Amino acid sequence: MVLFRRFLGDVLRSERMQRGLTLREVSAEARVSLGYISEIERGQKEASSELLASLCAAMDLPLSEVLRDVSSAIALEEVALGLRPVAATPITAARTATSDVVASAA
Amino acid sequence: MVLFRRFLGDVLRSERMQRGLTLREVSAEARVSLGYISEIERGQKEASSELLASLCAAMDLPLSEVLRDVSSAIALEEVALGLRPVAATPITAARTATSDVVASAA
Repeated sequence: MVLFRRFLGDVLRSERMQRGLTLREVSAEARVSLGYISEIERGQKEASSELLASLCAAMDLPLSEVLRDVSSAIALEEVALGLRPVAATPITAARTATSDVVASAA
Repeated sequence: MVLFRRFLGDVLRSERMQRGLTLREVSAEARVSLGYISEIERGQKEASSELLASLCAAMDLPLSEVLRDVSSAIALEEVALGLRPVAATPITAARTATSDVVASAA
């Protein structure tokens, strides 16, 4: 079973680290307990929609980007689990597009 | 505040209707109460990750596609709310790509 909260946690942690933010900083800015954010990042707790919006605002991160990244990661997982054909995944199209850009830039 | 559950509910209802499925059918297939699914579709209740996976499986719908559609809808909302510039939205690129396909097919 593909669990949304697990992939969401991975993306949120990755985005926080890319910004060089600590759990403590995000906790203070979002006014959410540090332990709760940590559990969300580890995919152990569901984040309510209000909490998710607060976390995104605290990191100056559009919710749409978080969900797009979660969607891409889940699409890969679905392929790995045989839940969908490779050709149908948006991630394949995205990769091809990226390769094109790289090729054009070269 | 952009609430995930509201957009998720819209996408789930839209996908169910596109498949010509009733709440009763999805309820029976997913083994989730009809009232609960209805509340989720109306954005009134949060769906746990397990429930979301069950609903997607019941509709033979990849979770990644649901999240991609939710992401696109939220990106438009973020532009409308001035939370992000128009040029940065994936939906703009998607629209352009669709227009290209339509133009090529014409």
